[in-house]
Amino acid sequence: MEVYTPITSEDDALKRSVFFISDGTAITAEVLGHAVLSQFPIAVTSYTLPFVTNKARAEEIRDQINAIYQHTQIRPLVFYSIISNEVKNIITQSDGFCQDIVQTLVAPLQQEIGLEPKPELHRTHGLSKKNLGQYDARIAAIDYALAHDDGVSLRNLDQAQVIILGVSRCGKTPTSLYLAMQFGIQAANYPFTADDMDNLRLPAALKSFQNKLFGLTISPERLAAIREERRENSRYASLRQCRVEIAEVEALFRKNQINYLNTTNYSVEEISTKIIDIMGLKRRMF
Amino acid sequence: MEVYTPITSEDDALKRSVFFISDGTAITAEVLGHAVLSQFPIAVTSYTLPFVTNKARAEEIRDQINAIYQHTQIRPLVFYSIISNEVKNIITQSDGFCQDIVQTLVAPLQQEIGLEPKPELHRTHGLSKKNLGQYDARIAAIDYALAHDDGVSLRNLDQAQVIILGVSRCGKTPTSLYLAMQFGIQAANYPFTADDMDNLRLPAALKSFQNKLFGLTISPERLAAIREERRENSRYASLRQCRVEIAEVEALFRKNQINYLNTTNYSVEEISTKIIDIMGLKRRMF
Repeated sequence: MEVYTPITSEDDALKRSVFFISDGTAITAEVLGHAVLSQFPIAVTSYTLPFVTNKARAEEIRDQINAIYQHTQIRPLVFYSIISNEVKNIITQSDGFCQDIVQTLVAPLQQEIGLEPKPELHRTHGLSKKNLGQYDARIAAIDYALAHDDGVSLRNLDQAQVIILGVSRCGKTPTSLYLAMQFGIQAANYPFTADDMDNLRLPAALKSFQNKLFGLTISPERLAAIREERRENSRYASLRQCRVEIAEVEALFRKNQINYLNTTNYSVEEISTKIIDIMGLKRRMF
Repeated sequence: MEVYTPITSEDDALKRSVFFISDGTAITAEVLGHAVLSQFPIAVTSYTLPFVTNKARAEEIRDQINAIYQHTQIRPLVFYSIISNEVKNIITQSDGFCQDIVQTLVAPLQQEIGLEPKPELHRTHGLSKKNLGQYDARIAAIDYALAHDDGVSLRNLDQAQVIILGVSRCGKTPTSLYLAMQFGIQAANYPFTADDMDNLRLPAALKSFQNKLFGLTISPERLAAIREERRENSRYASLRQCRVEIAEVEALFRKNQINYLNTTNYSVEEISTKIIDIMGLKRRMF
């Protein structure tokens, strides 16, 4: 069971147990619950319980919630998403403070749309005959990212929706994989290495794809720290070398009018969605 | 701009424009909004607008929402998450039907916890000094998955939290990458190939990690269809070959008491969270 503190709580007098409960993966409950909780200066012990689809499992969890309440006299916080009323009711009748993460938004929408919701349709992060083709396209995008990672293949670049350029360890690979995994976008990436720096030019193979190119850059200090983890005390990880590479690559981006982004303070989600935004790519949903 | 129908609507008389608006990546707004919308039999044209952090951008979007309303006389649905009141108010004063995806859950929680929320703390999918170490661990997990994909390296398996086994194209690689990307879990994977089938045994290098092994299986029909996409009319993709491989591998899993999962009807999110559940792994949040 995971213990985390959404913020480093100066005042951790306030401690809460939190349950993320779902009849599916619980990913949405976890992500949204985390966003909500991070607004409060409380220390949290969290329990994620996916695939809660039957009464027996729900009763176990209810007992766990109630036991914590009995012991601490503080109500556990419960974020849940469960379709079956029978299973859901067992959870909501616990001593926890329960919030239905999806239905809270469905009820007002029902008024606006003027139609009854059909909760049985809801299966986020699931696979069905309806989305199988789309799902296969997503897996194909992951295959593509792997086959075109780090410049290993410059074939089939016409199939890339974006080609990410940058020095070693600036975030190319995680970004390409995230674009594929989350959005089904076919992303290739190409590295510039130390050997390229003397006379840095855009490889001929990439020139014809000018409108697909996107550059990543990073602060030399952060790059040096990341590289140091990989190869301690190497020239590769030296701040001097990182400075040279970043300066050269940024100059290349500017000279060739390639859009680029400094990744130093951004997560892979932020880098990916910024690329989508800047390049005008399509965000698919899975 | 993306057009999608959350369900294949028999009755698509009801069409709605939907906006997912955020001052961050808009991933949470999109995922949750999609879950909510999928409960209604409506046809949706969706616009995802991330990084809405200033008034000018908000005003553009408000005008876009209003223009659609003027044109159709149907209110666009708006799912948003914006911290700045100034920016938020521009959106909520539009002609859209606006729902704050995070604050809707924050308000009741505020009562229960008895503390003021601090929305400025909220930055889902972001990077900060506080979570940088954790973020680096996540990137390290992605590196690990890539370095231990498809049995390319059997070194450092002691560092794996799980070792995924299965035949070619049963879902090992996407699952390993998803475990790393979403949960920071170090996952290796190892393939059984056609050549292994005559005398299928657990490789010696894996035997010592018995408690980390997890098997994937899949229906021979689905496997054949996936392989057919890769190598048309090959022995590799033949139903007969797929049947043999699956039968052999499932027998191996049973003989060696390795937990395994049939992936046929599961998405990578479901496979990953089921593995976490069954193996008792820790879900980290990013």
